[in-house]
Amino acid sequence: MPTLRLALCQVNPAVGDLAGNADLIRSWTRRAADAGAHLVAFPEMVLTGYPVEDLVFRRSFVAASQAALRRLATDLAADGLGEVAVVVGYLDADGPPQVSGDAEPGRGARNAAALLHGGTVATTYFKHHLPNYGVFDEDRYFVSGDTLSVARVGGVDVALTICEDLWQAGGPFAVARAAGVGLVVNINGSPYELNKDDVRLPLVRRRAAEAGATIAYVNMIGGQDELVFEGDSMIVTPDGTLLTRAPQFVEHLVVQDVELPAASGPATTDGELPDGMRVTRVTVSEELPAPTGPAARGEIIEPVADEAEVWQALVLGLRDYVDKNRFPSVVLGLSGGIDSAVVAALAVDALGPQRVVGVSMPSQHSSEHSREDAAELAKRTGLDFRVEPIQPMVDTFLANMSLSGVAVENLQARVRGVILMALSNQESPLVLTTGNKSELAVGYSTLYGDSVGGFNPIKDVWKTLVWRLAKWRNAEATRRGDTPPIPENSIGKPPSAELSPGQLDSDTLPDYDVLDPILIGYVDGDLGRDGLVESGHDPAVVDKVLRMVDTAEYKRRQSAPGTKISMKAFGRDRRLPITNRWRERG
Amino acid sequence: MPTLRLALCQVNPAVGDLAGNADLIRSWTRRAADAGAHLVAFPEMVLTGYPVEDLVFRRSFVAASQAALRRLATDLAADGLGEVAVVVGYLDADGPPQVSGDAEPGRGARNAAALLHGGTVATTYFKHHLPNYGVFDEDRYFVSGDTLSVARVGGVDVALTICEDLWQAGGPFAVARAAGVGLVVNINGSPYELNKDDVRLPLVRRRAAEAGATIAYVNMIGGQDELVFEGDSMIVTPDGTLLTRAPQFVEHLVVQDVELPAASGPATTDGELPDGMRVTRVTVSEELPAPTGPAARGEIIEPVADEAEVWQALVLGLRDYVDKNRFPSVVLGLSGGIDSAVVAALAVDALGPQRVVGVSMPSQHSSEHSREDAAELAKRTGLDFRVEPIQPMVDTFLANMSLSGVAVENLQARVRGVILMALSNQESPLVLTTGNKSELAVGYSTLYGDSVGGFNPIKDVWKTLVWRLAKWRNAEATRRGDTPPIPENSIGKPPSAELSPGQLDSDTLPDYDVLDPILIGYVDGDLGRDGLVESGHDPAVVDKVLRMVDTAEYKRRQSAPGTKISMKAFGRDRRLPITNRWRERG
Repeated sequence: MPTLRLALCQVNPAVGDLAGNADLIRSWTRRAADAGAHLVAFPEMVLTGYPVEDLVFRRSFVAASQAALRRLATDLAADGLGEVAVVVGYLDADGPPQVSGDAEPGRGARNAAALLHGGTVATTYFKHHLPNYGVFDEDRYFVSGDTLSVARVGGVDVALTICEDLWQAGGPFAVARAAGVGLVVNINGSPYELNKDDVRLPLVRRRAAEAGATIAYVNMIGGQDELVFEGDSMIVTPDGTLLTRAPQFVEHLVVQDVELPAASGPATTDGELPDGMRVTRVTVSEELPAPTGPAARGEIIEPVADEAEVWQALVLGLRDYVDKNRFPSVVLGLSGGIDSAVVAALAVDALGPQRVVGVSMPSQHSSEHSREDAAELAKRTGLDFRVEPIQPMVDTFLANMSLSGVAVENLQARVRGVILMALSNQESPLVLTTGNKSELAVGYSTLYGDSVGGFNPIKDVWKTLVWRLAKWRNAEATRRGDTPPIPENSIGKPPSAELSPGQLDSDTLPDYDVLDPILIGYVDGDLGRDGLVESGHDPAVVDKVLRMVDTAEYKRRQSAPGTKISMKAFGRDRRLPITNRWRERG
Repeated sequence: MPTLRLALCQVNPAVGDLAGNADLIRSWTRRAADAGAHLVAFPEMVLTGYPVEDLVFRRSFVAASQAALRRLATDLAADGLGEVAVVVGYLDADGPPQVSGDAEPGRGARNAAALLHGGTVATTYFKHHLPNYGVFDEDRYFVSGDTLSVARVGGVDVALTICEDLWQAGGPFAVARAAGVGLVVNINGSPYELNKDDVRLPLVRRRAAEAGATIAYVNMIGGQDELVFEGDSMIVTPDGTLLTRAPQFVEHLVVQDVELPAASGPATTDGELPDGMRVTRVTVSEELPAPTGPAARGEIIEPVADEAEVWQALVLGLRDYVDKNRFPSVVLGLSGGIDSAVVAALAVDALGPQRVVGVSMPSQHSSEHSREDAAELAKRTGLDFRVEPIQPMVDTFLANMSLSGVAVENLQARVRGVILMALSNQESPLVLTTGNKSELAVGYSTLYGDSVGGFNPIKDVWKTLVWRLAKWRNAEATRRGDTPPIPENSIGKPPSAELSPGQLDSDTLPDYDVLDPILIGYVDGDLGRDGLVESGHDPAVVDKVLRMVDTAEYKRRQSAPGTKISMKAFGRDRRLPITNRWRERG
């Protein structure tokens, strides 16, 4: 059996940055080649970044991706890397984008993989299974491919597949078995989701058994708008043995020698294949020199605990949002409470304290301990601390308008929003928002007040998890002999918005230990009222919580767009990546 | 040939309001029956409203739709309307919702039509062609049906189809020909789009020829969040004759006698059918009494001119957003400029002057004519006019913070936003935003300032079209002998944001006559830089405009969500209708 030295390049591309991503691929291929790799695999759509969303409909962008791929092949050869087989994901098209059902079948944009070798594109593969649920909209963007591409590399038949191809039974992996391949390369842009790593390995094992082939799974890392890609690249043999597994959330080069079955002469694939697919074959090399030096063996990294995993995901998501969009720094309001403390600690971990501005904006309702806890957090983390009292501005509004009740409460939060945005205009930091998911779900926040800001690291974190994260981060600091960043008082005290005298969250909301499980069932689990009651929740509390969520939805009605009269209004039918470096001009 | 009296009920349902929509169907069926109709057709998903988006994933909602359909059938019979054949759209499912590719094929939610008769559901049909482009995401929500439902009504074979089935060749209309039907009922939730009415009639004619059958096309009207449904219901014979065509944007009952071919005995559909579909048949009635009284003949309403059409669409979209979400009134800032004047005129047309509050918020940079033009608009339209000078609040911020340049300009817009939201909290009106599409595209607006608000009627209207609409609306008033609502001065003067001394839009932007065509090519047409230059635009201006659009995209980065760690973060993967009356609790 031939031994191939495989390299998985778990890298962090940027959407739209074709030139930068090509440079990334060249430098990592150089590293892999220096380690003696025969076959190097990069993630899904690494050349364009992922997901590119409506950029797919821009022909100039598709053409630029195609040209960048050809140029990458020649550049790699010019770099002296032409003998290495390099698998990269990119955006292709074999016709105009398919935006309505009347397009000719088989024409349109493709989520594609190419195997580059000897200065040319040796073969290409178009993704067969297109995910169209959750964060994915690929039926909108791509046409499904129907041909498995098999390349013979060093005498081993290697099939190319992309991401979702792995998540559905049948299709390319079943065809790979029929085609008798020895290795399936699966390139991914697989977004992080709590506990997804727990299902990934069993899934790869199932498909390796289905294909009767080793699987080389490579996933990107990095933040792209709401998404974080987590890495977790791995190689699994047909009998389910995990040969190597990369860490989560960091760029990483896996190099691993793998014994693979020799292809048995010129292959044919006759008869009907699963899912109506076909097979195309190309020979890159019948034989390669055996790997030199000591055997390459990647580590097997065990996934970390939930809190550590979420913390890393939030840090990476924030750092990449700030850096890929080229913001110099961030600014956030520090109330002394747990949410802003956790966001500040995340920001300091992501960017360093010198790129984080924390603003205490006390009012007449701010308690002494709130001001002190905010200052204490600043001291512990070393962030740039400012104080901007809001009372003069609040008083001027109150002197000029007749306001009462919730209008006065919200006014304070809105004055804070104006201050943060003024600082953002004056000094260019991105404003961070600090509302947790429980608050957002029940509408316990001020529209255009504390909701002002460009990025909210904890928008998908339930309040009870915010506390767990704070405790975990402090314990982690203690374990390492560092100062815990979050004041104990911010963790321990009862939560309050401090917008009216003596106000506490518990005046309005059930305890978060009661609230969060109901919200998780209703929002994450799509359970109805009866389902929630059946799962053991108090019917009266369920009704109260659902009423609050409905009221919160009412806020959406006050920050929605307007009427559309064309296919391209700004809004839901115009889905552009926010983090996007694609520019039409040179 | 039997003559059937058809009724098309062009009604306005509300998303989530199952009881209200059922009442609507019962009362319009009564009207149709009183007019002697044999067969009554309602729009797509009329029972649930359309589109219901992620409500599809809530089993309690699907079950409620199914139960509401059965109850509607018995209620219609109890109303004495059991002998009328009633076609209604609703949400069905024959299995758990399909959210990942591993679901069993053929299980999941369905975009469905039912024919109700004699107190029962005589037959159902599941939409075959699912649109997944533009505003549509139906591949995400529904499983495609593969069976054409044919019901014999009064001796005529009638096929049921839904919306997109009409927009794609092949599929149900080709199967309808093979099945030899005499009439195809096509029920729609077809959103308004500029000029769509111009393609609709030729399309219906093409499908009528393809099916060799008369088509009864019924579309809903009404606003649902960003969408406006326009009606434009019609009946077209196989030879392309337009028998009747309903007006746009208003509820309307079409009653039309149509001679249709008698079905020739018990039918079979042998052999392979187009698109792999099957046919199911049911007999409702072999014979019906001929229509009584004078022949029913619907009018043929010609579509109106573009400006009239857009104006009606914007009025309806705004009215339904306000009313379906139960806001008592609206409030907007009146600058004296054209955009806020047009929005105010739209709001007064939609809601009446007593439900519209206009606030003049002058600063030291506001010209005398601006204040006068705002007051003049208020006088002409009769809206509730207020004046809230912003200078005291602006001065307090400036006294307490060190701000300069654009930070000071934006501060003024943000103080206005705080005032409008305070009024909204105090008196409950919805805040209207007034930025036109050209402004939004190039980012000529203040984030969390003039972008504050719950609904923007002109967000999809290019600036040059704003002017055309203003002139059209004034001319229309003159034609009717009314006072033109918009002051001539607001139309004629050079546009200015008035945030710094002597500021004009033309200091920053190309003339709108130059700007808009470039933006239309870039945003609506997905043209690249080279494509725009090829279409004759000045390369230097194109580069300048594209740079502005990129800078505007930068604003999106400052009002984006945060990192997700679950499948159900609030944001793009949680797509709930904003206007939604569905409630879990009783």
